Amino acid sequence: MSVALIILAAGKGTRMKSDLPKVLHPIAGAPMLHHAMQTGAALDPARTIVVAGHGADQVQAAALAHDPAVEVVIQEEQLGTGHAVDQVRAALDGFEGDVVVLFGDTPFLQPETLTRMVQARRTHDVVVLGFDIAAVQPRYGRLVMDGDRLVKIVEYKDATEDERGIRFTNSGLIACEAKTLFALLSEVTNNNASGEYYLTAVPELANAKGLKVTAIKCDEAETLGIDSRTDLAGADAIFQARARAELLDSGVTMMAPDTVYLSFDTVIGRDALIEPNVVFGPAVTVESGATIRAFSHLEGCHVSRGAIVGPYARLRPGAELAEDVRVGNFVEIKNATLAEGAKVNHLSYIGDASVGAASNIGAGTITCNYDGVMKHRTEIGARAFIGSNTMLVAPVSVGDEAMTGSGSVITSDVDDGALAIARAPQVEKPGMARKLFELLKAKKARQSRGS
Amino acid sequence: MSVALIILAAGKGTRMKSDLPKVLHPIAGAPMLHHAMQTGAALDPARTIVVAGHGADQVQAAALAHDPAVEVVIQEEQLGTGHAVDQVRAALDGFEGDVVVLFGDTPFLQPETLTRMVQARRTHDVVVLGFDIAAVQPRYGRLVMDGDRLVKIVEYKDATEDERGIRFTNSGLIACEAKTLFALLSEVTNNNASGEYYLTAVPELANAKGLKVTAIKCDEAETLGIDSRTDLAGADAIFQARARAELLDSGVTMMAPDTVYLSFDTVIGRDALIEPNVVFGPAVTVESGATIRAFSHLEGCHVSRGAIVGPYARLRPGAELAEDVRVGNFVEIKNATLAEGAKVNHLSYIGDASVGAASNIGAGTITCNYDGVMKHRTEIGARAFIGSNTMLVAPVSVGDEAMTGSGSVITSDVDDGALAIARAPQVEKPGMARKLFELLKAKKARQSRGS
Amino acid sequence: MSVALIILAAGKGTRMKSDLPKVLHPIAGAPMLHHAMQTGAALDPARTIVVAGHGADQVQAAALAHDPAVEVVIQEEQLGTGHAVDQVRAALDGFEGDVVVLFGDTPFLQPETLTRMVQARRTHDVVVLGFDIAAVQPRYGRLVMDGDRLVKIVEYKDATEDERGIRFTNSGLIACEAKTLFALLSEVTNNNASGEYYLTAVPELANAKGLKVTAIKCDEAETLGIDSRTDLAGADAIFQARARAELLDSGVTMMAPDTVYLSFDTVIGRDALIEPNVVFGPAVTVESGATIRAFSHLEGCHVSRGAIVGPYARLRPGAELAEDVRVGNFVEIKNATLAEGAKVNHLSYIGDASVGAASNIGAGTITCNYDGVMKHRTEIGARAFIGSNTMLVAPVSVGDEAMTGSGSVITSDVDDGALAIARAPQVEKPGMARKLFELLKAKKARQSRGS
Repeated sequence: MSVALIILAAGKGTRMKSDLPKVLHPIAGAPMLHHAMQTGAALDPARTIVVAGHGADQVQAAALAHDPAVEVVIQEEQLGTGHAVDQVRAALDGFEGDVVVLFGDTPFLQPETLTRMVQARRTHDVVVLGFDIAAVQPRYGRLVMDGDRLVKIVEYKDATEDERGIRFTNSGLIACEAKTLFALLSEVTNNNASGEYYLTAVPELANAKGLKVTAIKCDEAETLGIDSRTDLAGADAIFQARARAELLDSGVTMMAPDTVYLSFDTVIGRDALIEPNVVFGPAVTVESGATIRAFSHLEGCHVSRGAIVGPYARLRPGAELAEDVRVGNFVEIKNATLAEGAKVNHLSYIGDASVGAASNIGAGTITCNYDGVMKHRTEIGARAFIGSNTMLVAPVSVGDEAMTGSGSVITSDVDDGALAIARAPQVEKPGMARKLFELLKAKKARQSRGS
Repeated sequence: MSVALIILAAGKGTRMKSDLPKVLHPIAGAPMLHHAMQTGAALDPARTIVVAGHGADQVQAAALAHDPAVEVVIQEEQLGTGHAVDQVRAALDGFEGDVVVLFGDTPFLQPETLTRMVQARRTHDVVVLGFDIAAVQPRYGRLVMDGDRLVKIVEYKDATEDERGIRFTNSGLIACEAKTLFALLSEVTNNNASGEYYLTAVPELANAKGLKVTAIKCDEAETLGIDSRTDLAGADAIFQARARAELLDSGVTMMAPDTVYLSFDTVIGRDALIEPNVVFGPAVTVESGATIRAFSHLEGCHVSRGAIVGPYARLRPGAELAEDVRVGNFVEIKNATLAEGAKVNHLSYIGDASVGAASNIGAGTITCNYDGVMKHRTEIGARAFIGSNTMLVAPVSVGDEAMTGSGSVITSDVDDGALAIARAPQVEKPGMARKLFELLKAKKARQSRGS
Repeated sequence: MSVALIILAAGKGTRMKSDLPKVLHPIAGAPMLHHAMQTGAALDPARTIVVAGHGADQVQAAALAHDPAVEVVIQEEQLGTGHAVDQVRAALDGFEGDVVVLFGDTPFLQPETLTRMVQARRTHDVVVLGFDIAAVQPRYGRLVMDGDRLVKIVEYKDATEDERGIRFTNSGLIACEAKTLFALLSEVTNNNASGEYYLTAVPELANAKGLKVTAIKCDEAETLGIDSRTDLAGADAIFQARARAELLDSGVTMMAPDTVYLSFDTVIGRDALIEPNVVFGPAVTVESGATIRAFSHLEGCHVSRGAIVGPYARLRPGAELAEDVRVGNFVEIKNATLAEGAKVNHLSYIGDASVGAASNIGAGTITCNYDGVMKHRTEIGARAFIGSNTMLVAPVSVGDEAMTGSGSVITSDVDDGALAIARAPQVEKPGMARKLFELLKAKKARQSRGS
């Protein structure tokens, strides 16, 4: 049966103290909303609908950036979780299939858990996800079971003494056939202290209709919600610890894994060496046997086998390093391909460029890719030797086995095998340095007296 | 009643194994002495007197650097805490008011605790600060109470079995009217194993005179003293953890707060983003909505709303970044103002300079501010375009909407709207690169044979 | 009696998931094998023999790199620890003295423990090293004692219920006279489930011959073996924690010691200041009173008293900094000596060079040491002033008190006291910048329309 995923993402997250909607705060380089969408994608849903409210424009943009097929429904007023799901009624009019409701701010939910909910739906009309809570907390509703049957969800403040002792606690997630869910939601009222429409009323209403209602269980850790920046930082730390452990288990070398910051999609091959203090932004792939040295910063790039990067190398989006490339200290590479064995060892900026195989880029080389208005490309051939401090004023090309003189500003294309040089002759003025020092010191002395 | 604060700061701190006096070792960028002075300042004291001994010159200089109104009294020989306080007798001759004695090496004391001591002084003649110790330790004296009355302070080694069981422990802090305190100190003797004059003798002497003596209580954590570098590092870690938590609570985004090093006076606005591995030295203000990227290092600077700094940006004292400024990788800014929207994106040194609004500073630009003897300023106008690798030999100015050619050494002022260029023409020598490579390889081969 | 050390290093370490032999994985910058050899060296062994198997060539090379006198014996097939030791039989034919067997993958073994084993050998024929295990684990064999006598080593799976309760556990290390050991090994069979020859059979065989067999005890922590990368990272973290604590105890200042990565041989003097986020590779010595600022990376270098390095300084092998040298941000120093008071403050590469006392190297200076085929040296005298962005095309020398003009490419030697300059004159084109901006904008607009 096809599934429509509803992701509740309308909350403001007051405790975040942020202008950014809560679900857009990132964990490991991706907004919480993307983590939720990613988890939900495991169900291969026919429809995915995000319910946005606070900062709806930003939430919509972020949702579409992750999946252009996602639908966004606006909850103008935040009148409770039942009200939030009810906003999707029109969008799902006529939808034949199940609805699974989850949250945009519970990033640790496992795909397998959603799969288990959908499986339980085959034999039950309503499936709620719960967890056994370690310590009694008044905050969450309790799941009152009768054998396999979920009788109702009771809020702690409305619970009897016996019910308060129940450990089985509501996560808020629910799975139900679409038609059934919206029919039940029509009966949910806001006759409560908050004046809100609660999704938690659905199980009891379903029982009253003689439907089969049950609850399945997951680990409490999966249901961890993010309410504050401390929660967020804690969630990021949990993510990092797991991701580091997975990399170690898969054969990646990290001398000090606690100092390596990973993104949700970092891919690192076996026997790659990651030194201390490396930051991986999104979309990085490091092949087996590559080395990322200390204090490097990588985003949106690919590092091939045998390449050595850093220390203090910054690879920006579009950096594509072939095998055995070397990118050394204080070097920035952006939107540039470096062919096999190319070297950029010191203090350079290579942007919007291609560098041929086995070429050597001298220290202090800069691709002058911006003329103040537009960006232009630099093409360097194979086995070329770019002298230190060469300015390559793009658009410009340097041929195979060509050479540029140190300190040259290259504005015209250089042919294969040619030497291009733009340099004033060295002039020596004997004794002049000593004279200059004397003059400057005398001037300073005069100024000191004058002040 | 006015208050004279006495800060005991004469100890050598042998276990620190340092030539630096103990109270000058820093926590979060400020000497311990400054932390103590800062805490004491909450009492708005009429007088603040630091008792210095080991490294007195350095201690005096540091104390005056923090507060030019502070007084420093020298304790030539270290003959005990009573002796230390007694050195202040002459300085406070005729002072009408209270004395509060605290220590230069207990950086976690809370201002509220000092306020409570002063409040208790209104109804008692002598007020001692104590704390309930978690585990029995022979190191500290015990406070023998009789109801509200502090009978005496007894050293562990002199205590009876019953007294050794007392959990209420002496912190060493004391508040008392100045005249009373010095009168009592006159009666303190050094008839003890160490031959020292102990401040702890004061309560018993006060009781003998029928004075009202009491003790109030604070958390043990507040009284934590620093005796070793391990203590110091531990105290810094405690400071960092608290400061990070406060920033998170106030709405600052930190993906990996454990990797952000803060100073005692770091100010960061709501929704500012601080990436991993950032070091804040003293005197930094980051406005709301600014971004400090990974591996950045900031000291004595101001970053405005919308500015993006780093990765690998170093802002030194006097760096003033207006709104929407960008300072990119491997860039150093010192004593320079960058107006709204100015960009310095790569590999540059901007020192002793001003950069106008929306100007773009090309990669590799250097303000040559030092002539070997003196420093000079560089002034760049608005909407200027400084070509890559421009050397700006100060003093020099570049006008509004002016441009410099890549690789130029600019020694004369450039007018508004003008293009300044200093560049040798590019010369191409066909086939020369290949010849040079051949020659060099042949030379190397000869050398190898020769060696 | 002379000692032959046998280090078992043939294992593949399947759980490491690595092409690198297990014992070559590093802890704190040195392969585990070196840690084992270092510990073993405390016995001043007459012979050191490494038994290599998987990756034997690499293991042999690494062993010889650490100690050219080491012998390497190959175990072609891995048929058990007894078989491994038996490979050394021929090499030790006729050797008069003791054999001590240890492992290449237990890096925390203390030299004192080996010494105690050798001492116990004076009064016993066979000495086994054991430890009291905290929790019962089926993995390790049990040492069955009868008073001082080790009766036998029993594997958990072969043990009686009583034997399984024994806490005294086999570490695998053994000391025995060479002749005795090889005689006993001849009797070891592979009649067991694994079909392997176990060293653990030796004690029982020795008892059968009426030899005196005993076991001595060490801490469990010393016997920690490395089987996975998680173990390895954990071992590195333990090493770091101990090394940091030792440095703090000896008087080194570290504000955030947890962010400082040390190597096995890092030497730092009293009152040196190490800021946060510093990485020490192998072979670094920092003298007392030097300062290493944040984000610095040091390998194979020496920093003298009063020198200040960083932030963002990279000192590579052969960097030798005399007293009061300053190396600032984004500066790389390689194979270069900097004499007293020399300064390289910004964005420079100094490689294969010497810099004289009190010389100032301007920002952006590069020693062009590589011509595409060979490396050459740069020599700079004392009190010289190298202007910003000077290219020093090696081989080249600059004399005492000489000066180079900013932006110069220096290809010829510069005399003492002379000023060398290579610079095109500055030309100003009034209004040209504004015209260029207009042209570029118009071009961009045309392109946009065209696309």
